[in-house]
Amino acid sequence: MKVVATLALAAAAFTLAAPASAQFAKPEDAVKYRQSAMFIMGQNFGRIGAMVNGKAPYDPAAAATSAEIVAEMAKLPWPGFTANTDKLSQKAKSEIWVDAAKFKEASERLQNAAPKLATAAKTNNLDTLKTAFQETAGACKNCHDNFRNQ
Amino acid sequence: MKVVATLALAAAAFTLAAPASAQFAKPEDAVKYRQSAMFIMGQNFGRIGAMVNGKAPYDPAAAATSAEIVAEMAKLPWPGFTANTDKLSQKAKSEIWVDAAKFKEASERLQNAAPKLATAAKTNNLDTLKTAFQETAGACKNCHDNFRNQ
Repeated sequence: MKVVATLALAAAAFTLAAPASAQFAKPEDAVKYRQSAMFIMGQNFGRIGAMVNGKAPYDPAAAATSAEIVAEMAKLPWPGFTANTDKLSQKAKSEIWVDAAKFKEASERLQNAAPKLATAAKTNNLDTLKTAFQETAGACKNCHDNFRNQ
Repeated sequence: MKVVATLALAAAAFTLAAPASAQFAKPEDAVKYRQSAMFIMGQNFGRIGAMVNGKAPYDPAAAATSAEIVAEMAKLPWPGFTANTDKLSQKAKSEIWVDAAKFKEASERLQNAAPKLATAAKTNNLDTLKTAFQETAGACKNCHDNFRNQ
C-alpha cells in the first residue's frame, strides 16, 4: 500500500514537473483539446460560410469576429496531435503520424490562410471575404481529405 | 410525406437565414461550444498555474502564449449559454438563467482579468504573473462557486 502511494506521488510529481512541451496531463486531454479548437473553428467558419453562400445576411461585424476566432483557433489544434493519441480518435487517420511532414505542411496552409481571412473580413467587402473564405476552405478540405476519416 | 419534406425544408431555410444572434444550429452545439472554450482555457490556465505554484519550471514564452489563449477563450463561452440549453448540462446551474445579471457580471470579471493576465505574462516577471494569475483565478472561482455544480 505504501509502495503504491509512493509510486502515485512520484507519478504526480513527474506530471507536474513535466516540461512545457509535454502540455497534456493525459492523451485524452490532447484529443479533447484539438477537437475543442476544431469545433470552435468550424462553428465560426460555418457562420462566415453561410454569409458567403448567401444563406445568411452578410453581417460584416459578425463575420470579422468569427474570422478573428478562426484565425486564433487555427493555431491551437496541432500540439494535440501527440504520438500517444494515434489510436484514440477514429476521425484521425494514421497518416497524421506516418507522414508528419505532410501533415505539418497541411496545418501550415491553414495557419497561412486563416489570418488572411481575418484581414479580409475587416474590409467589410463581401467579395474580398468570399475569396479569402475559399482559400481557407481549400486548406480545411486539403487536410481533411488526407488526414481525417469522413 | 410531402408535407414533412416541405416542413423540413422550411425549417432548414429558417435555420440558415437566422440572424447572427442565433449562432447555433442546435442547443447541443451551444453547450459544446462553451465547454470547448472552457476546456481550452482551463488547460492553458492550468499550465500557468503549475508555473506560478512552482510545480513546473517558469517558462516565460510558454506562459505568455498560454495567457494569450486564456484571454481569447475568456471571450467565447458566453453566447453558448442560450436559454434553450438550461437543461442540457448537469454542470450548469439554473442560476445562470435565473440571475442572468449576476452571471453576466461574473463573466465580465473574467473578461476584465484575463487580458491583464496576458499583459502580465509578457513582462517575463514571475511575481507580476503570480498577481495577475491570482486575480484571474478569483474570477474563475467566483463564477464556478455560484454557477457551476461541482
